[in-house]
Amino acid sequence: MDFFNVVTIDKANEIIMNNFFDYKFEVEIVDILDAANRILAEDVISDINVPDFNRSTVDGYSIIVEDSHGATGSIPTILTKIGEVRMGERAQGDIITGQAMYTPTGGMIPSNASGVIMIENTELMDDETLLIYKPISNGENMVFRGDDIKKGQVALRKGRKIDLGAIGVLASLGISKVKVFKKPKFYIISTGDEIIDLDEKASLGKIRDINSYALYSMIEKMGCQVVDRTIVKDDYDLLRLEVEKGVDLADIVLLSGGSSVGTRDYTEKVIASFGSKGVLLHGLAIKPGKPTIIGEANGKLIVGLPGHPVSSIIVFKTIIEEYLRQKLGNTEILPQVKAITEYNFPSSPGKRTYHMVQLREEDGTYHASPSFGKSGMITLLSKSQGYIVIKEHEEGINKGEERVVYLL
Amino acid sequence: MDFFNVVTIDKANEIIMNNFFDYKFEVEIVDILDAANRILAEDVISDINVPDFNRSTVDGYSIIVEDSHGATGSIPTILTKIGEVRMGERAQGDIITGQAMYTPTGGMIPSNASGVIMIENTELMDDETLLIYKPISNGENMVFRGDDIKKGQVALRKGRKIDLGAIGVLASLGISKVKVFKKPKFYIISTGDEIIDLDEKASLGKIRDINSYALYSMIEKMGCQVVDRTIVKDDYDLLRLEVEKGVDLADIVLLSGGSSVGTRDYTEKVIASFGSKGVLLHGLAIKPGKPTIIGEANGKLIVGLPGHPVSSIIVFKTIIEEYLRQKLGNTEILPQVKAITEYNFPSSPGKRTYHMVQLREEDGTYHASPSFGKSGMITLLSKSQGYIVIKEHEEGINKGEERVVYLL
Repeated sequence: MDFFNVVTIDKANEIIMNNFFDYKFEVEIVDILDAANRILAEDVISDINVPDFNRSTVDGYSIIVEDSHGATGSIPTILTKIGEVRMGERAQGDIITGQAMYTPTGGMIPSNASGVIMIENTELMDDETLLIYKPISNGENMVFRGDDIKKGQVALRKGRKIDLGAIGVLASLGISKVKVFKKPKFYIISTGDEIIDLDEKASLGKIRDINSYALYSMIEKMGCQVVDRTIVKDDYDLLRLEVEKGVDLADIVLLSGGSSVGTRDYTEKVIASFGSKGVLLHGLAIKPGKPTIIGEANGKLIVGLPGHPVSSIIVFKTIIEEYLRQKLGNTEILPQVKAITEYNFPSSPGKRTYHMVQLREEDGTYHASPSFGKSGMITLLSKSQGYIVIKEHEEGINKGEERVVYLL
Repeated sequence: MDFFNVVTIDKANEIIMNNFFDYKFEVEIVDILDAANRILAEDVISDINVPDFNRSTVDGYSIIVEDSHGATGSIPTILTKIGEVRMGERAQGDIITGQAMYTPTGGMIPSNASGVIMIENTELMDDETLLIYKPISNGENMVFRGDDIKKGQVALRKGRKIDLGAIGVLASLGISKVKVFKKPKFYIISTGDEIIDLDEKASLGKIRDINSYALYSMIEKMGCQVVDRTIVKDDYDLLRLEVEKGVDLADIVLLSGGSSVGTRDYTEKVIASFGSKGVLLHGLAIKPGKPTIIGEANGKLIVGLPGHPVSSIIVFKTIIEEYLRQKLGNTEILPQVKAITEYNFPSSPGKRTYHMVQLREEDGTYHASPSFGKSGMITLLSKSQGYIVIKEHEEGINKGEERVVYLL
């Protein structure tokens, strides 16, 4: 395969889906308290009605609504209070026309009552005599059995991220364990003779392994896990050994820095050496992030990420996050704000261009300006709140345009 | 204190800050790999320069830039290649005028070189003879010592949420442990005779404890922790016991449902019984969420949340999340999108009004429509992606307006 025979992002995503759509992520059962941000691996079908009784939404009196018709503030209807529904208990008995039963918010409504009149619109004269000052309509202030969720209904779909609302639905159904996809497992290999870990002694010419820590935090934030991370020198055999380990242990193997000039030969050869599909593409039409390698070994996705932190993060988000979102059916909206651009932003014709930006809020409006910094600087990332994307066909962004800024 | 002597959200936030601004959250030292989403408890001051050597941003030759002046594609300058800088190693020796040293991307530049010419703009004729086809300017393709982060500089400020960029900065400084605020601790008490937990047998009139699970997931998402959760019946002594436990164990005690008509008396009395400041406010000018109680016992913040899931969540976000963001100095932007409203949204004069909405995307534009559902329904929450806020002075929103939707 030719070096830097670049492909578009859309094409790259297609190549990945074609080759890894059938990849099976395992599933597991987890407790609802540990399920936040996980992805449902099956439809959740309700085996009950929610609520499973007609419920009042106010403090008031359950009545037969026809009894209230004609009632006004000056000419109230008189009903007989025959008792109270107690919270958490079955309503005792029914009512007949002319009767009313006190029902608190959330309380069970007697089965033949057809509405609940708010306590504010009534007056209790003595233990039994209730004045009704207002007509109510059928079903007023009631939630009917199954109104919220019906028995047999698909309450949550496979692929749903277990967010706040999904947690609420599971709790309301009395479901405390749920089948989710196991956290996709990553193995991170940082390559390069110059890379040292945080606990190693620094010396001139060395740089700290920034990327694998940044990748680690993005992977965890996505609800995935890192099974291990390691640093290897530029050496074919050492790299081969680590990739082999990664392919064994993880679903996805990341090579950080492995697509730079110094090591891309090794990376290609190592990926090819597994005798599977090998290198699927080398070079993305993206700026920054061009020197990206995507390959396959023993059925596992291997991605060689660029060495600069910002490039590495952009490619991770554009390629790997996108793959997992599509693959697992996660449709959650990406965190973003709209902002007015305070500068012109150039594009790179034919490439998808990403600009890191700083945001400032003024009277509820966000303004975006480019984060300046030389290639490879970490402050280019740490001073930015998000990034702007310019599509392949666009001619850059003019100052004053409103654009979506994706938050980091 | 009068019941439902409602106060505005701004006033409520002020009351909380006045009473709990001095509350001390403990700090702890955590590993960088466990630090994501935590809040920095001290400034991080760099004790090194990043990079700590002049670094090349390209593959090329380190030269004295004056040597390139006048060079063109047709009349190249000829320099003598005197060696190579190896990745991760100190540059060996200096160059003098007329010399060039090969320097890979990320490699250390010899100390007296003043620029790096990209390999594409040169040609190596033999082992020593290098043709230069282009002039370069001072500092071209170089990151200077300390360009990224200077020794002695505040690299990250106290209060910063440890996001991707902060992780990158810590790694680049070789910092593997960091001082953060301990996760604020919550104790959740669900009150009500009708409330049963997920593992209890259902019977008519009972409902599942939805709110404490929803709160649990919001608390964890905020980077806080739940020390315990419990359900109590409507009984003064039982409630007193649990609040006492909560005040002992946690920083913040949440009473879910404890502000409803049935239990608000108990809640007020219990909070007052500690002999501290007691109830600070009862009733918020917010819709939904009015029956909220905020109090203090033994220095701890106690919040009685409304019983309906949506109300409970709105008050949690508006009051408690906001307090912790302000208190811990977290300035992260709330996840949001801008959307065109597809319906009119009514306001409640003098109240801050929240509407749950569903979002739909069309050609990159989001459209928001109200989530319909009766009070207390969980699907009102689970079918929504976010909410719209209408300020106290606003007169509702007209169909077609563009508004911020805060994502759940």
